[in-house]
Amino acid sequence: MHSHDDSLNRLASVLRDDLDETNRTIVARMASDVQLIPQLAAHLVAAGGKRLRPLLTLAAARLCGYRGERHIRLAACVEFIHTATLLHDDVVDDSELRRGLASANAVFGNKASVLVGDFLFARAFELMVEDGSLEVLRILCNASATIAEGEVLQLSTQNDLGTDIPRYFKVIEGKTAALFAAACEVGGVVAGCDRDICAALSAYGAALGMAFQLVDDALDYAADQNELGKTVGDDFREGKLTYPVLVAHAGGDDAERAFWRRTIETGEQTETDLATALDLIARHDAIGQTLREAGAFAHKAKAALAALPDDPLRALMMEAADYAVSRHR
Amino acid sequence: MHSHDDSLNRLASVLRDDLDETNRTIVARMASDVQLIPQLAAHLVAAGGKRLRPLLTLAAARLCGYRGERHIRLAACVEFIHTATLLHDDVVDDSELRRGLASANAVFGNKASVLVGDFLFARAFELMVEDGSLEVLRILCNASATIAEGEVLQLSTQNDLGTDIPRYFKVIEGKTAALFAAACEVGGVVAGCDRDICAALSAYGAALGMAFQLVDDALDYAADQNELGKTVGDDFREGKLTYPVLVAHAGGDDAERAFWRRTIETGEQTETDLATALDLIARHDAIGQTLREAGAFAHKAKAALAALPDDPLRALMMEAADYAVSRHR
Repeated sequence: MHSHDDSLNRLASVLRDDLDETNRTIVARMASDVQLIPQLAAHLVAAGGKRLRPLLTLAAARLCGYRGERHIRLAACVEFIHTATLLHDDVVDDSELRRGLASANAVFGNKASVLVGDFLFARAFELMVEDGSLEVLRILCNASATIAEGEVLQLSTQNDLGTDIPRYFKVIEGKTAALFAAACEVGGVVAGCDRDICAALSAYGAALGMAFQLVDDALDYAADQNELGKTVGDDFREGKLTYPVLVAHAGGDDAERAFWRRTIETGEQTETDLATALDLIARHDAIGQTLREAGAFAHKAKAALAALPDDPLRALMMEAADYAVSRHR
Repeated sequence: MHSHDDSLNRLASVLRDDLDETNRTIVARMASDVQLIPQLAAHLVAAGGKRLRPLLTLAAARLCGYRGERHIRLAACVEFIHTATLLHDDVVDDSELRRGLASANAVFGNKASVLVGDFLFARAFELMVEDGSLEVLRILCNASATIAEGEVLQLSTQNDLGTDIPRYFKVIEGKTAALFAAACEVGGVVAGCDRDICAALSAYGAALGMAFQLVDDALDYAADQNELGKTVGDDFREGKLTYPVLVAHAGGDDAERAFWRRTIETGEQTETDLATALDLIARHDAIGQTLREAGAFAHKAKAALAALPDDPLRALMMEAADYAVSRHR
């Protein structure tokens, strides 16, 4: 996780009471007689995290003048969906499995992640049903289907350097931008805003999500480890196809392409490969290009908010878009 | 899969048009631009199967005099939820994973099962939102959460011979009976039935689900392989804790308990162990006891239907409960 201080922390301070209430709801609604559920969920959900997505729901609702309590439950529900996708993202492929019987202590692995994720998904939908808005349900169901589609597409294209930029964008639209967009939109819906305003909030969230994901991609090849607490090269070592790699590969000569094919497509890596990868990324200005792309999305995000009332909250949401891009420095 | 001929086939014949329409809806709504989704889903969903759960939705709706089309979509949605849980059930635990990088061709494993399952869950909820009944959403969201809880409880108790019968019933209430109950109940809801009738349908489905699961447990130690297409001993080899094992363990002497601890709790098995297990199961009449328990649930299922109108469909649903138990012969 990166540190999203600055504008995000200020947004969190302004919405402190709402956020505290959301955290209480999250803890209360993870409860289950089946102890493994709160145990495992607490590991991810209750442990904290930046609560970026629920923060967007809370901010959008308040920016639209909402004075009630419904946005709390929906913010919790957005966080549950996010946590469920994190749990499912961690599942490891069984092609790497050894043959043989499962050992008795193998209780907290893939299977627990999948099933507790399913529980959180179902709990999220229960929260929405309690809320009772079919429009909110529609938005978050569609987002959930889009997330799953994006993740499956990522699986289909992973290690495939033939993936082009539009296809890569489709992956991150699904796996990241869809929930950002939905989190913002339901804030508008709960406040009773008209279609245009809700669409503007959705557009803001979608563009913000794209910017965040692109910067995440860039940070993996550029982060100052001490400052951001992120290890350089995680994506590379996992053979993940991200934007900087696509840029460097597209601009590379035959030898460079052979390097990417070996390290990303076939996953064969030696100790010196990360240094070579960083060198190639730098040579093709792939970080710069990724951040410029992220900047364009941040600009789109801010432009979308022009439809919303001029308000200190709106200013903070706009700053959050800038911060998404500038946090690499 | 067992062959559920007889009364289930007759139920399917009576509802043939509805069932065909449900199958068309299922195929149409699995569609996605992301090709892996219909590919993998088709493997499970489109390939057929007995469609037992959607059949219950269709039967319940028609028994309640429903004449519209909504039950088709909801039957498809019940099948999507079932298929998603099957996909997630197949995920193997990562404690058995080898260290090392994933190979490039490892695309259709755990991860694909999880993500396509998530897509089907989300698609199921989209279908419900299109239907627009918050009551239907409530019932199937609750069922989904209960299924996940049951599966997690099963994971927590697996290999644990200290599991008692009430705890085991809680597992199968979740993993099997909850969706049977919900599938029946939404049929009543869509037909506009009052609370009592819907509760009776739910009680029928829940008891039927318990009976089915118990007979499944029994068949794994008793099936005539040629007749039922089920291999004896699958549950045993996987170290699954099922009702017949609990019965044999509870009635066993010290040596027998040591046998079950070794084979089920620690998963250490030799080639002759299955024969020993079958012998112990027979010695303690564990199959007989399991089937008597299943019979009691079938009786409960039929009794619940007394609240519904006397109708040929009701008679077939009652017979289905008897068939659930008699299919072992």
